[in-house]
Amino acid sequence: MTTTDKVLARADALMPAAQLRWIEWLRIPSISAQPAHTDDCRRAAQFVVDELAAMGFTASMRETAGHPAVVAHHPGPGGTAPHLLYYGHYDVQPPDPLELWNSPPFEPTIVDGPHGKRVYARGAVDDKGQVAMWLGAFRAWFEETGTMPCRITALIEGEEETGSANFKPFVMANKAELKADICIVSDTGMWDIDTPAVGTSLRGMAYMEVTLKGPSRDLHSGMYGGSALNPINALVTALGQLKDPEGRIQVPGFYDGVRDISSSKANQWASLGFSEDKYLGDIGLSTPYGEAGRSALERLWARPTCDICGIWGGYQGPGTKTVIASEASAKVSFRLVPGQDPAGVEAGFKRFMAEHVPADATLEFQTFGLSSGLEMALDSRFMKAAQAALADEYAKPAVMAGVGGSIPVVETIMTELGLDCILMGFGLDDDQVHSPNEKFEVTCFQKGLRSHVRLLGKITG
Amino acid sequence: MTTTDKVLARADALMPAAQLRWIEWLRIPSISAQPAHTDDCRRAAQFVVDELAAMGFTASMRETAGHPAVVAHHPGPGGTAPHLLYYGHYDVQPPDPLELWNSPPFEPTIVDGPHGKRVYARGAVDDKGQVAMWLGAFRAWFEETGTMPCRITALIEGEEETGSANFKPFVMANKAELKADICIVSDTGMWDIDTPAVGTSLRGMAYMEVTLKGPSRDLHSGMYGGSALNPINALVTALGQLKDPEGRIQVPGFYDGVRDISSSKANQWASLGFSEDKYLGDIGLSTPYGEAGRSALERLWARPTCDICGIWGGYQGPGTKTVIASEASAKVSFRLVPGQDPAGVEAGFKRFMAEHVPADATLEFQTFGLSSGLEMALDSRFMKAAQAALADEYAKPAVMAGVGGSIPVVETIMTELGLDCILMGFGLDDDQVHSPNEKFEVTCFQKGLRSHVRLLGKITG
Repeated sequence: MTTTDKVLARADALMPAAQLRWIEWLRIPSISAQPAHTDDCRRAAQFVVDELAAMGFTASMRETAGHPAVVAHHPGPGGTAPHLLYYGHYDVQPPDPLELWNSPPFEPTIVDGPHGKRVYARGAVDDKGQVAMWLGAFRAWFEETGTMPCRITALIEGEEETGSANFKPFVMANKAELKADICIVSDTGMWDIDTPAVGTSLRGMAYMEVTLKGPSRDLHSGMYGGSALNPINALVTALGQLKDPEGRIQVPGFYDGVRDISSSKANQWASLGFSEDKYLGDIGLSTPYGEAGRSALERLWARPTCDICGIWGGYQGPGTKTVIASEASAKVSFRLVPGQDPAGVEAGFKRFMAEHVPADATLEFQTFGLSSGLEMALDSRFMKAAQAALADEYAKPAVMAGVGGSIPVVETIMTELGLDCILMGFGLDDDQVHSPNEKFEVTCFQKGLRSHVRLLGKITG
Repeated sequence: MTTTDKVLARADALMPAAQLRWIEWLRIPSISAQPAHTDDCRRAAQFVVDELAAMGFTASMRETAGHPAVVAHHPGPGGTAPHLLYYGHYDVQPPDPLELWNSPPFEPTIVDGPHGKRVYARGAVDDKGQVAMWLGAFRAWFEETGTMPCRITALIEGEEETGSANFKPFVMANKAELKADICIVSDTGMWDIDTPAVGTSLRGMAYMEVTLKGPSRDLHSGMYGGSALNPINALVTALGQLKDPEGRIQVPGFYDGVRDISSSKANQWASLGFSEDKYLGDIGLSTPYGEAGRSALERLWARPTCDICGIWGGYQGPGTKTVIASEASAKVSFRLVPGQDPAGVEAGFKRFMAEHVPADATLEFQTFGLSSGLEMALDSRFMKAAQAALADEYAKPAVMAGVGGSIPVVETIMTELGLDCILMGFGLDDDQVHSPNEKFEVTCFQKGLRSHVRLLGKITG
């Protein structure tokens, strides 16, 4: 029996305890976007400090200009084993609209589903569930062997869901301490519940809020309608021109640096047999809504997007109010692909808005996060170890898959710390990440934890 | 000393008491749009029942399918004097955004302004203040002469601000009881603080809420952005095309029946010397935002409009949420002019939206009110009486002015009861009607009340 086999057996024995700690962590409403939850973010950070300290890590909460980060080090057994940096986040998205949850978002609820038990809670998978898997793998190695199989640094932030604006400077200021041989991230998904995946790319993001101001006060629409600038009309007129009828984004310079995928990649993706009908059917839709002339996976993994994530202005209550509001606002998110310059997209959006609003309109912008699209290195020994670990656990090879989402700090880790990243995640498309009723399958949690045990074995074995 | 002079002297003596009753009425938050204020609407109705009963009217609260109406009759002295129907409303617009009020909207606050005292409160002018003026005139006639100078019916509704959907059927069901020789309405404005006005036209309205639904749940914008229908993007794309770059409204058939104004009317309006620079400058704007090639007064009085009065969808809190919302909504108001068919505009807007949203989008509509634009009769003996009353009070002739606003039930009164209407109101452009910090000048209240005393004298004298 190999060491890895023994640790896997220990992991199975410890599985109930690992799940209980995960669920306990989920009870803390660590919503980074909302100042009312600042203390909850600290509690969620302290939770993971305590957890790592209990496994022999030198763990501490570290202040940033925003929510604190957690940094923990374990020296491992010494010798020539590599140094791994594990990255994750303890913060979660706001749970609203609350009325659509079937159970309270911060009271984890275990329900029987088609694949066995699942846990419903905000953060169930993103990212507490995924971090709890590698913490569980560490625990199994620690309990079975008394140490970690190699030198490990754990880095857990509290601002991933808001763009890591304060966490990135923290990483920059602590480069020497955070230097390692490879970074391992569990914040992405599987191909399907039976098939693991390793991420080959991440989209970046430019997320901005724009407020359009017009008259100095709200106006009666009968006394002023037809002559006074209506900020809601003006905002929708501008935002409504962000895409042309073919779905091409009209921000000046937006596609600068965007490359078409290679034909070999196109062939590889086509061979995956992705069913867009099922993908859209699962969310009640039937017709793709994006750039014309691109395949579904290309649109998701290799093309930039523009989504308005929120809009508001004027009267939103029951019935009528015949008002011209003095201002209106929207939150606009651009997913970016490798080659695009996030600062250029930010500047282009500001220019686009300025060019599409009428005289008298004043524009105010807030930028919440800028990050680049990234390509992962595919040929390292660590990538081969991840593929082997997943193949052993699932008895089939992992799909090499693009990732449509963004993990803002991965750019900093790759460019500033100079590390390759392994994106090995265990979420499913229907986990309702960022939506009401976020869930994580217990089988994904268990096999993901075991995969992390195996990865440590492969890297150090 | 004529009877009218004696009643005017009595009105002056009773002015403090009239103002106190007005202010007491303003304390009742009779917001018809909001179900939480249903009881407050009844209290506001009862207040005016009591007031009319104290002046010898047979007054009662009358149930409708919505908020109650008030109907009160006074037989007057008998004989051949005409029968007057006074119409007004006790309901008010929602006061939000509350944070922009300098004093609580339902705690009337008296402040010194450039024209003397003014009262700040929701409803200060629209329409409690204006109704309180004619109630005060009735009180002066009653106290001085022991009766009304002619037969009077008072009709006060509680749904004017929400389109009078339940009040119109009430009027239809009580045609015989409400029949009179003329209808008098105080719900419009003066030309300026020194110059009275009589309304020559009213704009109508079609007010609709539209909800665009897409995916069956909120989605992660990274996992679905670029392929799944985004209802906010789709809604702004459709609404953003409601007007062309010249400000022409693109709803099919929208301008059917709209007539250009006559050259004589154009000349008359030009002679009024309206300053669009001042009108826009007072609200912090400098550039007209409406149909190209039309004068300011034409745009306000004789052209239809399209204003989005509210919009909402997705995440509206602090920071970021990278979400594709499952639905988005807007409230859209069209001001209509004589000749347009409100039901045709309603159907045209539905068709426009259906033609401008992508596959998979589901549209839901609610219509809150449909009313036609109206022209007043200008040559009746009652119109001449109103002009004479105002000329006596202000020592200058009244401006014959179009009205940009709408009073939905006036159409019913004109077409179903067959009555001409006199629109004799005393609001000012800067009264902030429907906005935070609505106010009414005490001098307007006082001279308006005296004008109503004079009008009764002119009609019956």
